[in-house]
Amino acid sequence: MDLKENKSLADKFAGKRVAITGGLGFIGSNLARRLVKLGAEVLLIDSLISGYGGNLFNINDIEDKVQVNIADIRDEHGMRYLVRNRDYIFNLAGQVSHIESMTDPFIDLEINVRAQLSLLEACRHNNPTAKIIFASTRQFYGKPDYLPLDEKHLLHPPDVNGVNKMAGEWYHIVYHRVYGLKTVSLRLTNTYGPRQLMKHNRQGFVGWFIRQAILGEEIQIFGDGQQCRDLNYVDDVVTAFLVAAAADRSIGHVYNLGGERPVSLKSLAEMLVEMSGKGCISLVPFPEERKRIDIGDVYSSFSLIQQELGWEPVTPLHKGLSMTLDYYRKHGAHYWT
Amino acid sequence: MDLKENKSLADKFAGKRVAITGGLGFIGSNLARRLVKLGAEVLLIDSLISGYGGNLFNINDIEDKVQVNIADIRDEHGMRYLVRNRDYIFNLAGQVSHIESMTDPFIDLEINVRAQLSLLEACRHNNPTAKIIFASTRQFYGKPDYLPLDEKHLLHPPDVNGVNKMAGEWYHIVYHRVYGLKTVSLRLTNTYGPRQLMKHNRQGFVGWFIRQAILGEEIQIFGDGQQCRDLNYVDDVVTAFLVAAAADRSIGHVYNLGGERPVSLKSLAEMLVEMSGKGCISLVPFPEERKRIDIGDVYSSFSLIQQELGWEPVTPLHKGLSMTLDYYRKHGAHYWT
Repeated sequence: MDLKENKSLADKFAGKRVAITGGLGFIGSNLARRLVKLGAEVLLIDSLISGYGGNLFNINDIEDKVQVNIADIRDEHGMRYLVRNRDYIFNLAGQVSHIESMTDPFIDLEINVRAQLSLLEACRHNNPTAKIIFASTRQFYGKPDYLPLDEKHLLHPPDVNGVNKMAGEWYHIVYHRVYGLKTVSLRLTNTYGPRQLMKHNRQGFVGWFIRQAILGEEIQIFGDGQQCRDLNYVDDVVTAFLVAAAADRSIGHVYNLGGERPVSLKSLAEMLVEMSGKGCISLVPFPEERKRIDIGDVYSSFSLIQQELGWEPVTPLHKGLSMTLDYYRKHGAHYWT
Repeated sequence: MDLKENKSLADKFAGKRVAITGGLGFIGSNLARRLVKLGAEVLLIDSLISGYGGNLFNINDIEDKVQVNIADIRDEHGMRYLVRNRDYIFNLAGQVSHIESMTDPFIDLEINVRAQLSLLEACRHNNPTAKIIFASTRQFYGKPDYLPLDEKHLLHPPDVNGVNKMAGEWYHIVYHRVYGLKTVSLRLTNTYGPRQLMKHNRQGFVGWFIRQAILGEEIQIFGDGQQCRDLNYVDDVVTAFLVAAAADRSIGHVYNLGGERPVSLKSLAEMLVEMSGKGCISLVPFPEERKRIDIGDVYSSFSLIQQELGWEPVTPLHKGLSMTLDYYRKHGAHYWT
């Protein structure tokens, strides 16, 4: 972000009361760090569910500058209190594993559907003027009809997580249209960078590849490795959240994020192995459980948010990966287990 | 339905074990009646929730030919047993009031989302080979981008009911794609005919107009009455369910139903007043709670189901309304309160 942008965001967020659900997680904690710098008063809401992305180390350098409240967004009563008097609510808490959404569909439902509805009901009754920014996903476009995915692409979610995230997003839009809540939804693509969950590989491939490259392990890629994805460095995603929060124009809208350009999984793994100087790559057949919900090539267009809010990814992949590798080389011990 | 069609459906359903959730309701009970005629062994599952469509009078002429099991689809344990050993499961139970979905969003969520997921889980574990036909709705297309609505139209649900029905439908599709369950979804438009709920007007306008015409009351239409809708006579909808159940080709697909042609609310009301010889019409401004979720003109294309499964509506509006008026003139007392 350039200086001018930083200045205008500081004007917007300085002294503002902000809550972040999932605030101890990957994107939430990076967002918290930026908001602290911008002078906001930041409340982090997280339940530190085992196996999810919440990690107290994620805020170790800002822990005296934020308020932490351990609470589950499924806790209706707690949330009803916590949303009060907030200017901005960044709603990032979620169950994000596609695989787990199939093995535990009701947990995914409670977190990604029911809790979203109760958060919106809480805001409607206790804080109807807050700007609410929802962390959605491009995942529920499903197997693409065309590429890049834009916001006019049909939604055909490939798994329970996709169905539930789609419902969670649409509650936000409905609560804007019917009750005037100031909601906006960002459909994220693959995000990478410091403070990502790396304990297991059930939340996406990027963090796992990075971990394996650093630890000098074999990066297994399913299929021929030619499937393409786009990636966003977490700082760019944080900027998108801030920009969407700051602009009145975003209210009631849905925006894709998207990477600069698609990259094949094999190329990405090769970059990582080369950059880390360790690890190797192997191509393996798709496991059955993954094959059933695999969606082939997929990447998003960020034209709409670029046009309407002026956001675009600015961190080149090589630079982003380099900063990421630096971070985990230094702090990996807090993320491996 | 012509004789040939009847014969082929009888071949398909005779002796087959069928369950209908929402089986004491409007469409469910009409479907039950047809299936009994076709020689199926019919189990009706319904919880007779007060204010919903279930009505024991709906089966008074077939009650000794069907099995009735009072149970709520939210009852996971009961459903796990009830889905066993069924060749066809017509999944019609739902919360259908848009207004109530906004006043009681969590009840709508439990019925239209969670219970659908648990029904599919029950089938996956206890009856993975049943054909499951889901009663969906064109309502979650929301305010049309173009008309008539086809299955490629973007989904932008206008209210909580729409979000939840959309999720419920997509669970069905996901459970086909991931687990091979034999699911199909029909997106119904306004259905009318004998055995519809008429106690209150929270489940749509058609039944209510019919009631008022018969009782000689004033039919109030919101706005200028020029807003268009399409209508299906319930027998045609029943045929659509049977055809979708019978065809292997339908598996994993979503089909719109649709009326012969759109009709304005004012024309419809005028037809009813003329046919019943009673009642009158007045145009009134939109109440605020309805205006917020109103979607203007809306009607669906049935081209896809016509092309793929050979279904089309065959009952002309005037004839359908005439049969409907006859039914309620005779049996209205069982429906007014």
